Amino acid sequence: MDPKPPLRSLTGIKPTGMPHLGNYLGMIRPAIQLTEDCEAFYFIADLHALTTQHDRQALKEHTIQVAATWLALGLDPTRTLLFRQSDVPEVTELCWYLSCVTPLGLLQRAHAFKDAVAKGREITSGTFFYPVLMAADILAYDSDVVPVGKDQKQHVEMTRDMAIAFNFHFGDTLKVPEPRIGEEVATIPGLDGEKMSKSRGNAIPLFLDPKSLKKLVLSIRTDSTPLEAPKDPESCTVFNLFRLLASPEATAELAERYRLGGFGYGHAKLALFDLLEQHFAEARDRFRRHMDHPADVEDVLDAGGRRAREVAVRTVSRVRDAVGL
Amino acid sequence: MDPKPPLRSLTGIKPTGMPHLGNYLGMIRPAIQLTEDCEAFYFIADLHALTTQHDRQALKEHTIQVAATWLALGLDPTRTLLFRQSDVPEVTELCWYLSCVTPLGLLQRAHAFKDAVAKGREITSGTFFYPVLMAADILAYDSDVVPVGKDQKQHVEMTRDMAIAFNFHFGDTLKVPEPRIGEEVATIPGLDGEKMSKSRGNAIPLFLDPKSLKKLVLSIRTDSTPLEAPKDPESCTVFNLFRLLASPEATAELAERYRLGGFGYGHAKLALFDLLEQHFAEARDRFRRHMDHPADVEDVLDAGGRRAREVAVRTVSRVRDAVGL
Repeated sequence: MDPKPPLRSLTGIKPTGMPHLGNYLGMIRPAIQLTEDCEAFYFIADLHALTTQHDRQALKEHTIQVAATWLALGLDPTRTLLFRQSDVPEVTELCWYLSCVTPLGLLQRAHAFKDAVAKGREITSGTFFYPVLMAADILAYDSDVVPVGKDQKQHVEMTRDMAIAFNFHFGDTLKVPEPRIGEEVATIPGLDGEKMSKSRGNAIPLFLDPKSLKKLVLSIRTDSTPLEAPKDPESCTVFNLFRLLASPEATAELAERYRLGGFGYGHAKLALFDLLEQHFAEARDRFRRHMDHPADVEDVLDAGGRRAREVAVRTVSRVRDAVGL
Repeated sequence: MDPKPPLRSLTGIKPTGMPHLGNYLGMIRPAIQLTEDCEAFYFIADLHALTTQHDRQALKEHTIQVAATWLALGLDPTRTLLFRQSDVPEVTELCWYLSCVTPLGLLQRAHAFKDAVAKGREITSGTFFYPVLMAADILAYDSDVVPVGKDQKQHVEMTRDMAIAFNFHFGDTLKVPEPRIGEEVATIPGLDGEKMSKSRGNAIPLFLDPKSLKKLVLSIRTDSTPLEAPKDPESCTVFNLFRLLASPEATAELAERYRLGGFGYGHAKLALFDLLEQHFAEARDRFRRHMDHPADVEDVLDAGGRRAREVAVRTVSRVRDAVGL
């Protein structure tokens, strides 16, 4: 029996600058794992970013930083396409064709739009139209699966609705994708024990130099149980971060030390620091080399963009033919 | 003193198939007159048509018919650009950039959208987004003026708002166009005296063969004043159509005959028929030659599209640079 061709998966990455440990564990690591059994298209969503990002220099810098991060963390650009959304302007054209078969009510039912209305926030037309461009991104590459968290499932459902509506009006043209709902990722705690996020200021950046990283890890909030006393690993942020990166054996060993007592939070923090260094020191070096050679990173993105565009041009050409252009 | 460069004007033409006398008098004739003192860009709005037109064959045919009509009626493609909207996909890309600086409220205040809501009609997202694509069409060509009827003035105002918002966020990039409100065109009466429209079934198609045209003109509704009696020209549909095409002298002469009596509606209808033949017989021949050689018409559209696209590519490249892509 011939092996099945690999499924094609699509993921958009927000160009939001320097990633932190929460981004890595929640998104980057599983996405890079996925490239092992999928033909993966990873695009940096710069067109989407423009709905809120109006600082041209920041957009450029964040794009390079994000690309350098993924490359440093193991994305292999020879087997996975890494590219800028804007290098495939065909998606904006496909967005128009989709909008012509999408009832306005579908967009008005989008969770993000309803939230904005409920909060009385003024939004741009681009933010309102976000689901159509996202659908165009997915459909342009004939994606089979779209890995999403539970909260993004609606986007894939809307994409399916648009593809089905298009095929109904103009004949079978677009591949209808399936969502692939990821396992619920544990909440990644930050320095203060709350969910790690850049805006909260409790994040551990991925590629900090060792000295600053150590200082930051040592600042993780713990309780005041004395060194000698036994400790509960489960309620400790340091342990909860450790277990997300460590092997089961190393995790069990650390838990045991917590429970035995005579092991202080300072020791645990140093263990976490060592583990972080073990995991990210090489990636940090690679990241810095990439950031020192931004033109090379641009070359990788350009090459990915050309390959992605070839696929999108074929899809849009099929679509134009179907609608009669 | 150097002469000023000609103003650049932009007009979209709906691909709605065979035009009638009302289309000619209301839109085509003034638009062709405008090409004498403007650098005019005339595009066949096939992307807009897709918001409601889902018959691919009809879209293709109507596009050729509309192009053949304008060429037959005197549009000179060497001085005026005649092209398909869809041959410049850059407008869909520009549409996205504009949407990122356009408050959703602006689109919600569009007359056409408010009408649809008031009538409880379900519309597509494309119809809702129409004003943004229209703005992209206008701005892509650095248009100076946009000739519009009073009822379309809002579209140009919205376009100005979007261009000003874009320039505010990203620096001076887009030319802010001016509306040019056309003189109020008299309502063109149809066969039954009501406003001529294809959907009402009272239209006089432009390029009917003489026999069918005569039959149609003879069917224009008139009152039952006997032949001998004096008649009021102003209240007669035949006279009101005649005056829209005839010279002031010929119009005065016909009015005089109406008032003198001894001149029947049948005579007036024949005079109108002769005038129509005089005006459109040659154009009809040209139209037929164009329709017999659709590939030549396509060549004209292709060439216009290439020239228009060059302009749009430059604008979009300026815009991409401004936003940081």
